[in-house]
Amino acid sequence: MQSLKDKILLEGTIVGTDILKVDSFLNHQIDPQLMDAIGRDFAETFSDVAITKVLTIESSGIAPALSTAFHLGVPLVFAKKTVSKNLDTDTFAATVHSFTKGKDYVVRVSKKYLRPEDTVLIIDDFLAKGCALDGLVDIVEASGASVAGAGIVIEKGFQEGGSRIRKKGIRVHSLAIIQEMSEIDHRIVFSDEE
Amino acid sequence: MQSLKDKILLEGTIVGTDILKVDSFLNHQIDPQLMDAIGRDFAETFSDVAITKVLTIESSGIAPALSTAFHLGVPLVFAKKTVSKNLDTDTFAATVHSFTKGKDYVVRVSKKYLRPEDTVLIIDDFLAKGCALDGLVDIVEASGASVAGAGIVIEKGFQEGGSRIRKKGIRVHSLAIIQEMSEIDHRIVFSDEE
Repeated sequence: MQSLKDKILLEGTIVGTDILKVDSFLNHQIDPQLMDAIGRDFAETFSDVAITKVLTIESSGIAPALSTAFHLGVPLVFAKKTVSKNLDTDTFAATVHSFTKGKDYVVRVSKKYLRPEDTVLIIDDFLAKGCALDGLVDIVEASGASVAGAGIVIEKGFQEGGSRIRKKGIRVHSLAIIQEMSEIDHRIVFSDEE
Repeated sequence: MQSLKDKILLEGTIVGTDILKVDSFLNHQIDPQLMDAIGRDFAETFSDVAITKVLTIESSGIAPALSTAFHLGVPLVFAKKTVSKNLDTDTFAATVHSFTKGKDYVVRVSKKYLRPEDTVLIIDDFLAKGCALDGLVDIVEASGASVAGAGIVIEKGFQEGGSRIRKKGIRVHSLAIIQEMSEIDHRIVFSDEE
């Protein structure tokens, strides 16, 4: 997606060897017009499947997932990282490791919102090692629903998550795949395949 | 907003004396078409002010805030509850007490995304005692920006936050104000004023 790649080149900041900061339009400040375009793209890409739900994980997945769900005309469910009085006790759960936060956490989805008859499109902001996506796939499979695929805003193609998950037979569509990046000369190279 | 009130009456569940569960369309599963209508309403209500940013707090505020920001054509910033490698160290911070989670937490916004020249519309899913809204107002004021007002999806009018914050001179627009609710007979009464 060219407008996304342009935005990454213009505003993305590389920290160390594997952190790409895009907090000016995706992770902290959000560009709603770009999210709308992203949602349109995902909805169109997966228009050959009769999707009934979009699933993401709080918090940075919510914006692109909401827009996708809007364009598909289906509900969005976001997996929760914390337990509150508002969450049902009867949940599907998976343990996910966060490399940016340096810890494991449990993500949960109420059993009310994923049913065996659902066909689920998973949306997330980043795909790197694939831990969050693994967790979401596990949750969908535990519910008996089908995984239609995964729509990823930015994939770090130099990390193993994307190829590992594609090998499992899951359709992954990433809008921008970073092949290599370097903090020293501020260089970001995208892969041609999306 | 009648469609929201209808949805609350149809799908909301009352737990105890002060919890209204709306996790089928707002807090866990999200209805994107309803969010779009909510965003349109907020954008129209505050169209007399030249808003430059929408501010909310992760996670349940993001969906209505994104839609509002989209209809206003301005960026959305969401305050973060956890520190990660992706968040700047130079932040505006406020301590907020969560009654649903039973603990205090610090919310942070990078100083890059709130500037003295900004006019900020705060959006949140719920207003009860007003702690989260207080924290967001403190953050905007610390940045030197102006608070245009607050758009709230559901206000618990029987708790003190709304009237306390309005008394401080902040314009609060709530789409549904619950005057009273009762678990025993599943009764929800809305206030006429919005």
